[in-house]
Amino acid sequence: MATNKLKIIPLGGLGEVGKNMTAIEYGRNVVIIDAGGMFPEQDMYGIDLVIPDYTHYLEDKKDWVRGIIVTHGHEDHIGALPYLLKTVQAPIFATQLTIGLIDVKLRKNDMEGATVLNVIKPNQPFSIGGVFEIEAFHVCHSIPDAVGFAIRTPVGMIVHSGDFKFDYTPAWGEPPDFAKLAQLGKEGVLALLSDSTNANNPGFTPSEQTVTKGLDQVFSEAPGRIIVATFGSLISRVQQVIEVAVKHKRVVVVNGRSLQESVERAQELGYLQIPRGVLISLNEMKKYKDREITIIATGSQGEASAALGRMALGQHRQINIKKGDTVVLSSRIIPGNEIVVNRAINRLFQRGAKVVSGRGTNVHVSGHASQEELKLLLHLIKPKFFVPVHGELQHLHAHAQLAIGQGVPEENTVILENGMVLELTQKKMKVTERIPGGYLFVDGKNIGDVGRVVLRDREMLSQNGFILAVVHVSRENGQALSRPEIISRGFIYIRESGDLISRAEEVVMKALPAKKPYDAVRKALQDFVDKETGRQPMVLPVIIED
Amino acid sequence: MATNKLKIIPLGGLGEVGKNMTAIEYGRNVVIIDAGGMFPEQDMYGIDLVIPDYTHYLEDKKDWVRGIIVTHGHEDHIGALPYLLKTVQAPIFATQLTIGLIDVKLRKNDMEGATVLNVIKPNQPFSIGGVFEIEAFHVCHSIPDAVGFAIRTPVGMIVHSGDFKFDYTPAWGEPPDFAKLAQLGKEGVLALLSDSTNANNPGFTPSEQTVTKGLDQVFSEAPGRIIVATFGSLISRVQQVIEVAVKHKRVVVVNGRSLQESVERAQELGYLQIPRGVLISLNEMKKYKDREITIIATGSQGEASAALGRMALGQHRQINIKKGDTVVLSSRIIPGNEIVVNRAINRLFQRGAKVVSGRGTNVHVSGHASQEELKLLLHLIKPKFFVPVHGELQHLHAHAQLAIGQGVPEENTVILENGMVLELTQKKMKVTERIPGGYLFVDGKNIGDVGRVVLRDREMLSQNGFILAVVHVSRENGQALSRPEIISRGFIYIRESGDLISRAEEVVMKALPAKKPYDAVRKALQDFVDKETGRQPMVLPVIIED
Repeated sequence: MATNKLKIIPLGGLGEVGKNMTAIEYGRNVVIIDAGGMFPEQDMYGIDLVIPDYTHYLEDKKDWVRGIIVTHGHEDHIGALPYLLKTVQAPIFATQLTIGLIDVKLRKNDMEGATVLNVIKPNQPFSIGGVFEIEAFHVCHSIPDAVGFAIRTPVGMIVHSGDFKFDYTPAWGEPPDFAKLAQLGKEGVLALLSDSTNANNPGFTPSEQTVTKGLDQVFSEAPGRIIVATFGSLISRVQQVIEVAVKHKRVVVVNGRSLQESVERAQELGYLQIPRGVLISLNEMKKYKDREITIIATGSQGEASAALGRMALGQHRQINIKKGDTVVLSSRIIPGNEIVVNRAINRLFQRGAKVVSGRGTNVHVSGHASQEELKLLLHLIKPKFFVPVHGELQHLHAHAQLAIGQGVPEENTVILENGMVLELTQKKMKVTERIPGGYLFVDGKNIGDVGRVVLRDREMLSQNGFILAVVHVSRENGQALSRPEIISRGFIYIRESGDLISRAEEVVMKALPAKKPYDAVRKALQDFVDKETGRQPMVLPVIIED
Repeated sequence: MATNKLKIIPLGGLGEVGKNMTAIEYGRNVVIIDAGGMFPEQDMYGIDLVIPDYTHYLEDKKDWVRGIIVTHGHEDHIGALPYLLKTVQAPIFATQLTIGLIDVKLRKNDMEGATVLNVIKPNQPFSIGGVFEIEAFHVCHSIPDAVGFAIRTPVGMIVHSGDFKFDYTPAWGEPPDFAKLAQLGKEGVLALLSDSTNANNPGFTPSEQTVTKGLDQVFSEAPGRIIVATFGSLISRVQQVIEVAVKHKRVVVVNGRSLQESVERAQELGYLQIPRGVLISLNEMKKYKDREITIIATGSQGEASAALGRMALGQHRQINIKKGDTVVLSSRIIPGNEIVVNRAINRLFQRGAKVVSGRGTNVHVSGHASQEELKLLLHLIKPKFFVPVHGELQHLHAHAQLAIGQGVPEENTVILENGMVLELTQKKMKVTERIPGGYLFVDGKNIGDVGRVVLRDREMLSQNGFILAVVHVSRENGQALSRPEIISRGFIYIRESGDLISRAEEVVMKALPAKKPYDAVRKALQDFVDKETGRQPMVLPVIIED
């Protein structure tokens, strides 16, 4: 009988940030850790969400999945669940707030009750598939109830850090559980999978306490309303803002749907403590003076449709930005969003607001461990094998170098890419195969029906638009029967280019008759337009034979 | 007789970075300072270059322009010259290297000899239009031969800082000319226009010397080839890399057309000192060992078509990235380029290179003054009026606050936007009118024939593509004569959606006959597609009556 093998298969989050997902396989048993989604990058034209491509791995293994364990409730760890659950009907295991946020997400996708949601607690082991003994351990991150996982398998223990930092004074809950981590290390850990997001940052990530102080400073100086923009999922940040507001005798309005939903659910579950009378509605705002008001709003990424974006554009129905307002951006700028965020900041200045953001202001800190914390985790866990996860390739490399510097032998460290299969025994590890991986595009209501070809067309259209030439040709001799009709969109102001158009019509007429009229017209028109304008729009002939 | 008035009109660079241009007007005399261009932002679909919209201001004043004075040879100060010179045939005044780079640019645009190019020197006054006595003064920036201007007018002296920092140990040339600045201050300055780019940065900008040290460190540790990516226009950086390469007994290859052109011109004019035998061609590289080679390459912004981009993609014909290579990104990342730069970095890691970039590495410093330097300039120049220039609105605000903190009365400080006309007397200044401003898009061979409508179409097409419905209808009764033909691009994989297409055809047939067949077909198809796919492609009916 063949021995069962222990395998780690990263399905997302390695090299591509934010689509975190890992499978652990032993025999015919699979446990999946996280299933995240990410907003598309700027050249993924029209795409709504990007998720890990788990389809190849799960193709003939979907019945092996015994459970899905989730580290915390951020989008980049739970965003793909509604899609994954259409393929795999495995139960989900997570802490209370995480389960609450997953439930909100499933309801939004009309998938309430799609699977069993199990609330777990740190340090209370549970079993999945009879071969995995799993125990969550408390970690600090920018959302309450975040955990890492210790997964005991017949080959050895795998520890997954989840997203974490070592924060001695977190905004919510307990400091790190060093005793537990040290105990796992003593028990013996085969492999550590650890968060590489900030592996390039020297030192220690500042405590969330820094943000409380930074906010306190801003609140002390603000003459009028204070508007704090942050992510809906940064529940701990919301708690901090509320505490500082209470200290400064201000009421709080929560504005923006995603934020309201998270706040409501977190409050229901006891993860937000708001003194009675502090939370008011938008309509009640008029009862208060400006210096008594705090608004927590969505739109920290400059999105024109979110609450802050509408304020910046002067399109918010209830809130007009004016002199005396202070706007605080209390979140990081996701790479690629710098330009829109800067535009929003400039518009807010234009309307008279003061904007507080960026370095030196202490109104945001990262939720991820820096180098000294990563070293500390390595020394607590003392793993035999080390696998950096969560981060671009440059961060995985930096993290691996860090581990080697701390004494992990180079041959016990591996940099995986999504879809690589890492096989582990008690003595060795090696990459045995590579499953086609990458990511899936979610666009409109469907997954996967927009691929590279469609995106290439969208890119081409975005650069130069298109030209349409509708031509009647004679079925008998292939001559044009009438002047062609030229239509364009996204090309140039066609009304001011009458001459160009009439010459283009001539070009089309001259290209006929031809053996392949479609190709002939297209080629002739492409050449003409390129020569005249230096542009390469998509050219699409419509040939009608009569 | 009406008194002649002194006016300052910013035409670009205020609120919008990189399209720097200012006009100074006295009576019927105008001098223009700089005419910059900027790469488009990510949502300016298909645009090649963005330049200030000077057309409204110059409409009836183009004959008043007596001269164009240019502070330095960077793209964001000279990029619009080939376009401006088509409207205004005024002579250009600049220092030697700047004139050299302007000449390169004009030749590229087939505009050699389009105007007179006058080489000026710091501290040697010249006269323009009989009313402006102008004197350039030396400043330190990331290109040699950069200057600011003191413009003496009948009303008073205007000082424009140009792009500057106070670097005591610059990579090229002299440290700042404090004596000159102090002398101007003593003479009495009516208004100071000063670089606001880094007005949010506390402290002093590090010296270029820091970069020499940072590079030296990298060169000491690199086991194989070193590839340094930077901008073609960062001539001082090129000099630094060459000096460090010489110290470490390495030869240098320059790779990338824009870089080669700048390097050649700078060397011709004596602004680059390269010991004989150090500069070799790509083909000579094979004669050297890897540890003897330095490559200076274009592509620091991750552009796939530049030298480094092709290396990262494995598409460079002569240079294959391999283990042992060290890649240095020695330039800032222009906001909006973070994602492509990160992708390039990750690809280089994937091919085995080590990549050095970002904070903590000292391989790049800014060329612009931070807060302490801005204060120092204010105290040297001691202007009556203060006008922050060059920067987003947030930077202009920060700079104005800084000046007020240094004792400039608030009413003597003004935040202008492009197109505002600031009128100055010896006692007062005020904004008297606002000329329509903004920017012009250069796309292909033409300026201005791509406007907001075309860009909106391009954006729409980039998100969801388009659907075309070609329908024959009866001239008599408006019924469809045959099944419509549905064509789409950038929408979804149409081949895998046969059913959707045939139902769309039905929808089109059913919409006919109609009073307005175009509108009816469009509406019916839009509704159908939205309901079925959740997407909103551009829908374009082509109605053919027979």
